[in-house]
Amino acid sequence: MTIKGAPEAVSYPEDLRSLVDGALQRLEFPAPAAAGGLAEAMRYSLLAGGKRVRPVLTLATARGLGADPERFLPVACAIELIHTYSLIHDDLPAMDDDDLRRGQPTSHLKYGEDVAILSGDALFAEAVRLFCGQPGDPGRVLAALGELSGATGVDGMVGGQYVDMTVVERDGELLRTMHALKTGRLIAASVAVVPILEGLAEPERIPFRRFAAELGVLFQIVDDILDVTGSAEKLGKPRGTDERHGKLTYVSLFGLDRARELAAESHAKATEALADAAGETGDLRSVADYIFTRDA
Amino acid sequence: MTIKGAPEAVSYPEDLRSLVDGALQRLEFPAPAAAGGLAEAMRYSLLAGGKRVRPVLTLATARGLGADPERFLPVACAIELIHTYSLIHDDLPAMDDDDLRRGQPTSHLKYGEDVAILSGDALFAEAVRLFCGQPGDPGRVLAALGELSGATGVDGMVGGQYVDMTVVERDGELLRTMHALKTGRLIAASVAVVPILEGLAEPERIPFRRFAAELGVLFQIVDDILDVTGSAEKLGKPRGTDERHGKLTYVSLFGLDRARELAAESHAKATEALADAAGETGDLRSVADYIFTRDA
Repeated sequence: MTIKGAPEAVSYPEDLRSLVDGALQRLEFPAPAAAGGLAEAMRYSLLAGGKRVRPVLTLATARGLGADPERFLPVACAIELIHTYSLIHDDLPAMDDDDLRRGQPTSHLKYGEDVAILSGDALFAEAVRLFCGQPGDPGRVLAALGELSGATGVDGMVGGQYVDMTVVERDGELLRTMHALKTGRLIAASVAVVPILEGLAEPERIPFRRFAAELGVLFQIVDDILDVTGSAEKLGKPRGTDERHGKLTYVSLFGLDRARELAAESHAKATEALADAAGETGDLRSVADYIFTRDA
Repeated sequence: MTIKGAPEAVSYPEDLRSLVDGALQRLEFPAPAAAGGLAEAMRYSLLAGGKRVRPVLTLATARGLGADPERFLPVACAIELIHTYSLIHDDLPAMDDDDLRRGQPTSHLKYGEDVAILSGDALFAEAVRLFCGQPGDPGRVLAALGELSGATGVDGMVGGQYVDMTVVERDGELLRTMHALKTGRLIAASVAVVPILEGLAEPERIPFRRFAAELGVLFQIVDDILDVTGSAEKLGKPRGTDERHGKLTYVSLFGLDRARELAAESHAKATEALADAAGETGDLRSVADYIFTRDA
């Protein structure tokens, strides 16, 4: 979409996305023969494409701090597995009941509801296993995994999905809380794990946290706008599903114009936070610009 | 049930179970106010009782090796959270479609299917977070968590549930594989994490692995027998559900008498393995005896 204050040319770090895509394709799930179909269902959802925003953020943060991004592939892939598991479960009939995801039938339509639930569960388990194999100081790996698991639990992704499923009030504070949990904390963790793994002192971690938290908000506002203004073809799913489900969104609560202003404010806050962060932040800036200007 | 070759008096380590129950009751899930209902659903399933076989195995292994069992409570509780999450998801309408669990309505009947799925997901995340807080050498904690997550993934619990949902052949080998994955690997991990955390050398870990793997088989054979012979009141759920679902079980495949013989053989193998294990193995023997002779 085009928004006042948006950067004109956005250069998403495609080289990092290629690294992630390659690593995800090479991932082997140690399924015994009788569970081969489960591994197939996991790969179906995992390899459906997408911009890989979360793992790219991980690798971009690493490169910005002068580290070799390839060394962070286990953690980056683990985060994408968790994101994929959350999409599969969110699409289930008992949740958002979505038929299409990235232009393809959702997991439960293709493999059945039981297999979809299990492939989400298995992706989560394999993510933890993968993370445990991350090279580096074990104390830091453990601390980073603690951060990530916190971001996916009751005070994070799953808690946010719960609020999304159960909330009925039209309340701006609650909307922000819901998105901060549901989308924001995993995006924030995608960045935050790297300063932990690199052993940065607490004060140096703060700008990264501010950046990433705001990025999560920005991501969600743009998501809500795209559900109203986006092209079904580009989104890979019908638009207007939020409205049909009577969902509380930035657009339903504030209207389209105000939502666009909020996105611009959020983008500005995210890039301001980057100014205080250590290292090279050009890649992270590019991801923020992409999230702000994306049309799918 | 009474079985030839069964021990006459079984003394389950109730003191360890009390430790586990107390720790589970004190667990606080860091749910924000809007997700309080999610934490409630998690506690509903987690505190429904039961013998706590898996965490008791963890504490019994620790005590047998001369360690203070209380130090292993984070890991023990994490394992019980994972077990509870698997029960919630297995009970779902898309899976076994069970109405009762330990005499109470299953999570999805009480809270709805969406909340049940999410409370399973959140229990898994909180289990990982809890495990990351286990005191001790971080490298060992990470290795133990790698073992546990492997036991819950495609080559473990979730893979086994997939086989259970999809298999149609009446094949003894497949039956054993399914149970080794679905039930066996988590029970085995409940024991195996302790020698890893205590830094035992690989050869010393082998008898514990043999014991625990066999214990998983024993557990499942007895489960299948109880589904036919048990009392609905004691089981806390109707009996005969396996048969109604046309499930492949030790009883459906081998008949009741042969299944009982297999249970006795499995119990004997488990206790034989214990003879080679380091430390005091009395508590572990008691748990094996309980699993063999339980009536619910």
